[in-house]
Amino acid sequence: MLAVLGRGVVDASAPIVRADDAGVTRGDGCFEGCRLLDGVIDKLDAHLARMARSAASLDIAFDADAWRGLLAEAVSAWTNDDEAMGGEAGVRLVLTRGAAGAAASGYVMIAPLPAEYPRQRRDGLTVITLPRGFASDAFTASPWLLGGVKTLSYAVNMAAQREAARRAVDEVVFVSSDGFVLEAPTGSVVWALGRTLHTTPPGATGILGGTTQQRLFERAADAGWQTSDTLARVDELVAADVIWVMSSLRGPVDIVELDGTRRTRLPDVDAEIRCLAGF
Amino acid sequence: MLAVLGRGVVDASAPIVRADDAGVTRGDGCFEGCRLLDGVIDKLDAHLARMARSAASLDIAFDADAWRGLLAEAVSAWTNDDEAMGGEAGVRLVLTRGAAGAAASGYVMIAPLPAEYPRQRRDGLTVITLPRGFASDAFTASPWLLGGVKTLSYAVNMAAQREAARRAVDEVVFVSSDGFVLEAPTGSVVWALGRTLHTTPPGATGILGGTTQQRLFERAADAGWQTSDTLARVDELVAADVIWVMSSLRGPVDIVELDGTRRTRLPDVDAEIRCLAGF
Repeated sequence: MLAVLGRGVVDASAPIVRADDAGVTRGDGCFEGCRLLDGVIDKLDAHLARMARSAASLDIAFDADAWRGLLAEAVSAWTNDDEAMGGEAGVRLVLTRGAAGAAASGYVMIAPLPAEYPRQRRDGLTVITLPRGFASDAFTASPWLLGGVKTLSYAVNMAAQREAARRAVDEVVFVSSDGFVLEAPTGSVVWALGRTLHTTPPGATGILGGTTQQRLFERAADAGWQTSDTLARVDELVAADVIWVMSSLRGPVDIVELDGTRRTRLPDVDAEIRCLAGF
Repeated sequence: MLAVLGRGVVDASAPIVRADDAGVTRGDGCFEGCRLLDGVIDKLDAHLARMARSAASLDIAFDADAWRGLLAEAVSAWTNDDEAMGGEAGVRLVLTRGAAGAAASGYVMIAPLPAEYPRQRRDGLTVITLPRGFASDAFTASPWLLGGVKTLSYAVNMAAQREAARRAVDEVVFVSSDGFVLEAPTGSVVWALGRTLHTTPPGATGILGGTTQQRLFERAADAGWQTSDTLARVDELVAADVIWVMSSLRGPVDIVELDGTRRTRLPDVDAEIRCLAGF
């Protein structure tokens, strides 16, 4: 399913991006990945707000109302065509800078849940830590480094996931050059110790603020949890009761093996966190 | 001018990239930028060799012979259509990972010299240094960080160039978090002190090895220059006789202002270096 700003639903297999669009020649643009559940895009306002911030950081125009209209059209068409595939799907919003002298271009794709997600949700994630190269304060006062911006320039994130596959694990947790926990290539890292939930602070660390993590922390606070932005070393992460990698489509999934060491699962805590996050 | 692997020359304004190609959704692919001079692509072997290395680092197949054939077709068509624009043009090779389950895709674009290049070559470059966030040894033993790989994920490079434009200068020299000179967003940094030419070492620094810098160093060595891979602090750069930013299409251009301080131009040295580099 593919729908293009200014055009509406089009043939998903037909090329729509020009060869000279900076979105492809320079990874110059931004995106969001959302969860479609029973015909509703989960946390749509949060996703559009973050995409507006990403676009502003890149000096690309962003018209939230136009995107809402396009998303409504795409979701309507998807529901009609694919009722049989279950109530859950992934929605991706892509905004590219466009070709030189041409306008930015935007489109929405809807696709089934990745095939490995049900297994990962059930069995948990095997994870390795990998250096990200940046110090935990590298993004201070350097907006051109695009910290916290969900750009299309994700080649390193994808290479890290290929490294994980080579080592026969599911996922990566990036670590700063000074030894602090950052984020996963496509998700936030959250950990519980007692009745406190922790995550890495955005800002100087350059990590992307997660919409699933933010919703979880709001709801968890209402449910009696303490929440904390915590710059933690890997050994502090290891000492947590439960660690999750969480993103909008896969949801929170607990880490069952970290750097080769198995972790005891705590099904009650895990179930509470998944439920609070809407999974 | 646009030519696509497996198709040949096509309408340059027609979209050719699928919405779900990882080249656009993830900046997952690689590219080269070359100089076309009087119908010949300068340093073609060096560009194809570097692109083969980039593609190998990304686990994307690369068929150099197919690219040679496509380039010959594109150059032939360009010469016929645009004889009036002068003997110099830019050639870009783009290789994307493709959509999930689909093959990689590749194409070649030929376009006129950017409008600002003649002025910059004549007047030299005004430059600011900007932090790149990485330490000078950040890429050691971390191939997933894609050091030295010319990926499509250039959003930070483009954002740094926008920062330069905001500060009303031409160009950026990136500096590591520990204070060492790295590279420009789309070029190498080379400096002369006496009869020695210096550039930043590739490898642990993560910089891209420049084909223009490499040719220059080979030819300069034959012409009696010493050459050196030198990790230098910014004050060492400032102390150089001449500093150049060099890339395949713009060639070596001397820096006439660095972080707000004017530099004395040395036309004889500059002319010798430009000539040795083929400009």
